Amino acid sequence: MTALPRGNFLEDFKPGRTIRHGTPRTVTDGDIAVYMALTGSREAAQSADTTAKLCGLTRRPLDDWLVFNIAFGKTVGDISHNAIANLGYAEVRFLRPVFAGSTLRSETMVIGLREINTRNAGIVHVRSTCLDETDTPVLSWVRWVMVPKQADGRRIDTQVAPELLPLIPPQDIESHARLGSANALRAWCQATASTKLWDDYALGDGIDHPSGMTIEEADHMSAARLYQNTAQVHFVPKTMVANEAGRRIVYGGHVISICYALSCEGLENRIHVAAVNSGKHTAPVFAGDVLYSKSTILDRQTIRHRSDIGLLRLRLIGSKAHDPEAAGGGLTVLELDYWAVIPRRHG
Amino acid sequence: MTALPRGNFLEDFKPGRTIRHGTPRTVTDGDIAVYMALTGSREAAQSADTTAKLCGLTRRPLDDWLVFNIAFGKTVGDISHNAIANLGYAEVRFLRPVFAGSTLRSETMVIGLREINTRNAGIVHVRSTCLDETDTPVLSWVRWVMVPKQADGRRIDTQVAPELLPLIPPQDIESHARLGSANALRAWCQATASTKLWDDYALGDGIDHPSGMTIEEADHMSAARLYQNTAQVHFVPKTMVANEAGRRIVYGGHVISICYALSCEGLENRIHVAAVNSGKHTAPVFAGDVLYSKSTILDRQTIRHRSDIGLLRLRLIGSKAHDPEAAGGGLTVLELDYWAVIPRRHG
Amino acid sequence: MTALPRGNFLEDFKPGRTIRHGTPRTVTDGDIAVYMALTGSREAAQSADTTAKLCGLTRRPLDDWLVFNIAFGKTVGDISHNAIANLGYAEVRFLRPVFAGSTLRSETMVIGLREINTRNAGIVHVRSTCLDETDTPVLSWVRWVMVPKQADGRRIDTQVAPELLPLIPPQDIESHARLGSANALRAWCQATASTKLWDDYALGDGIDHPSGMTIEEADHMSAARLYQNTAQVHFVPKTMVANEAGRRIVYGGHVISICYALSCEGLENRIHVAAVNSGKHTAPVFAGDVLYSKSTILDRQTIRHRSDIGLLRLRLIGSKAHDPEAAGGGLTVLELDYWAVIPRRHG
Repeated sequence: MTALPRGNFLEDFKPGRTIRHGTPRTVTDGDIAVYMALTGSREAAQSADTTAKLCGLTRRPLDDWLVFNIAFGKTVGDISHNAIANLGYAEVRFLRPVFAGSTLRSETMVIGLREINTRNAGIVHVRSTCLDETDTPVLSWVRWVMVPKQADGRRIDTQVAPELLPLIPPQDIESHARLGSANALRAWCQATASTKLWDDYALGDGIDHPSGMTIEEADHMSAARLYQNTAQVHFVPKTMVANEAGRRIVYGGHVISICYALSCEGLENRIHVAAVNSGKHTAPVFAGDVLYSKSTILDRQTIRHRSDIGLLRLRLIGSKAHDPEAAGGGLTVLELDYWAVIPRRHG
Repeated sequence: MTALPRGNFLEDFKPGRTIRHGTPRTVTDGDIAVYMALTGSREAAQSADTTAKLCGLTRRPLDDWLVFNIAFGKTVGDISHNAIANLGYAEVRFLRPVFAGSTLRSETMVIGLREINTRNAGIVHVRSTCLDETDTPVLSWVRWVMVPKQADGRRIDTQVAPELLPLIPPQDIESHARLGSANALRAWCQATASTKLWDDYALGDGIDHPSGMTIEEADHMSAARLYQNTAQVHFVPKTMVANEAGRRIVYGGHVISICYALSCEGLENRIHVAAVNSGKHTAPVFAGDVLYSKSTILDRQTIRHRSDIGLLRLRLIGSKAHDPEAAGGGLTVLELDYWAVIPRRHG
Repeated sequence: MTALPRGNFLEDFKPGRTIRHGTPRTVTDGDIAVYMALTGSREAAQSADTTAKLCGLTRRPLDDWLVFNIAFGKTVGDISHNAIANLGYAEVRFLRPVFAGSTLRSETMVIGLREINTRNAGIVHVRSTCLDETDTPVLSWVRWVMVPKQADGRRIDTQVAPELLPLIPPQDIESHARLGSANALRAWCQATASTKLWDDYALGDGIDHPSGMTIEEADHMSAARLYQNTAQVHFVPKTMVANEAGRRIVYGGHVISICYALSCEGLENRIHVAAVNSGKHTAPVFAGDVLYSKSTILDRQTIRHRSDIGLLRLRLIGSKAHDPEAAGGGLTVLELDYWAVIPRRHG
């Protein structure tokens, strides 16, 4: 019986190396339904073809985070199979809407490498791209992970610092959404049952999203399996030294999906995520935890040549208590700084 | 941080007021598959295109209760977000089959209002309608809920008693199902593996459906999320004063789905639900409960101008024990009085 | 209240009798998505239309075990409703790929009957066939179950021994998969991210698949419901004398799906299952168990007139520990001896 080689170690991540990940995945209405059942997502444009048409799309696209999680899942076997920690995200760009019937695959380039002081591990930065069946990029992102060295412990000579934007500039952002007329905007607001538009959010505004969601083992494992994510830490209680809890750890992308879905109340007119400036899982989530969300408006920007839609920069905080401060703090699990596209009041 | 206003209170329900609920929802084969996985539904016409064609439909329609639950879910945020109790249903009319690809939305009219003696709450009657993307009604129903007043406690002056039919008259019922020939009926009975037709049920007949189903937290929450139902009581253990159990309460529509699916054995030839005369959740259901069903034939009626199909009026009792009387009683969770369409023996 | 007759007893299984099972089932992209979410399946040809086209199929087919489980589920009510044990499988032949949109039904012939010594039960052999909407067989299999007699206890006169092949001869196996060119093979290997082909496996090779999967009640019940399998032992903790554990027993087909999905690592280029020579559930699986897989190459054969693909005969062992011997043995839950189709290196 030979054990299989499993994933890559620090030595394998040569800066500049590109990895084409396995198992392209056709996405369908089935994935959309399972995603709704697992996350409770109810974004307007993603829920109905009729609503999607109001903002210029041919039919409802997949949820942004469903696309992200499927794209991310493809990279796990090569990038984070041996990861000690998934440290952060940056430069996440949602480039095109993805529709049922598309086939998605991912590829990844190593863009940074740094040994840590103990020399038994290092931090690897990678830029991944998700492409559809025509090889058109639909999503790209940077993440960095801590990866152990293999047993030999040789010193890594080439250390490369990644070039990262602290913020995706709003002038770089485009959107396929288009609210072509005052009538379309009116019908859109009827569909979302909300008239709170881009114009109505002010810098510093906070939104205390009222709903919570209890996490179940069956739910987070089903989500990770839907994404064909193979990281053992989500499926088996005791897998690695780093998993001190001895429990299955909820896949971080599922935490994002849940917290984002909870943040719908108060942001009903959000059309889609345009980009994520930075993201961090600040604590592990386990089955039995109840997650809540809060949002803060960090910025409000226009989009070039567009008067129908605008950008809100939002900070989404996910935590294990509705009022984490009252609960003694330390319960934050997610920090996400992102740009959302939202309709503007018609001139 | 501003907390969001949440749903409506007693003072907001002006009789005659109509509310157009948010977030239209396109339904697909994905929803059908998830519904099967969560409920075990195996109604013949809803399981296969070939079987649906035998009764005159172009393809398999969605399960009646899947449509009901999605339509109902749309109304929760506006109608029952603050409800102390969901007291009952009446005049539920399944008007048209719904197929994958349709987009459903709901609207609701307030048809009754009555303060209760303690004056801190009242009973609101509403009539909701689910419409497809062409604004054609596919389903309508009345329900009544107990809703608290807001803090101010002003007296409600206008009290309106709703006009309700105790029974949907069989002469009002139409059906899109049509078994056009003796051959179609024969093929239908082959598909259901049962020859027990309308003609074979007698008034007062009882059917002790043998199967039970254990309820899991992941299942009932996935069902409520699939329906985009946002009532917190299904997702968070401790949410409201009324939830004395301190546990998540299973969404009532999931209880109906499960009990109805269990009632398939012995009613294999049921084609669809035509109408519900009255419905009541008599006790809350929690994860870990095992549900069972019993049916009684209350009436048998013909449909105008139709000799191929007829109506059975059935009482469906859902309970937490296979033999609730032997178990000491008090275990009933659901009472449903409905009309089902079922083929008649060919003249 | 009349209790319903439930399934068949030993006396009902007359050798030569054919049973047409109820409730044909249309399969869709929804079923594929739910199956992925419940099992984590990531077979290459079943995951993407583009990959399926590389091996000559018009689009991705359903997973072999999804087809098997739906087909099997149809037979449960008539064959194994009263079964004391599901003893084994043989001669499982996957005859044609099944695509979304097909409607499947099953029928079964009794091919063997033998009373056991205690005379209160017997062993029934049946051969079942799954047919699509054109009555074309897509799958056939033999299984045998121990079934109790009814109360009367009359002696069974006719005992018939089934004729069973110990092994499906490789010369009997055909495959719809076709890798038409060296380019197609290259693209296929890019899709699977593996270059390990038929030529690279040697007799006796063992593969220690590294991943495990924890089983949840919600997951195995959702799987059994998706397959419209009505066996109570999967849904209710205490149902029958034979269920000494007093717990829900995981449906054996779900165990096969999980163990097969876990065996993907190391067998990434497997295109589909061609046939199962023998199968056995050696111990019941319960929620909370963590399942692992090991594979051994038993044989390597060519397919008549085909140089693009070949056959591997594999033994798949599923168990409740990654290293069952170290854990004291006795943890094996599944033994499956099957033929898989896999590409050959281009001449």
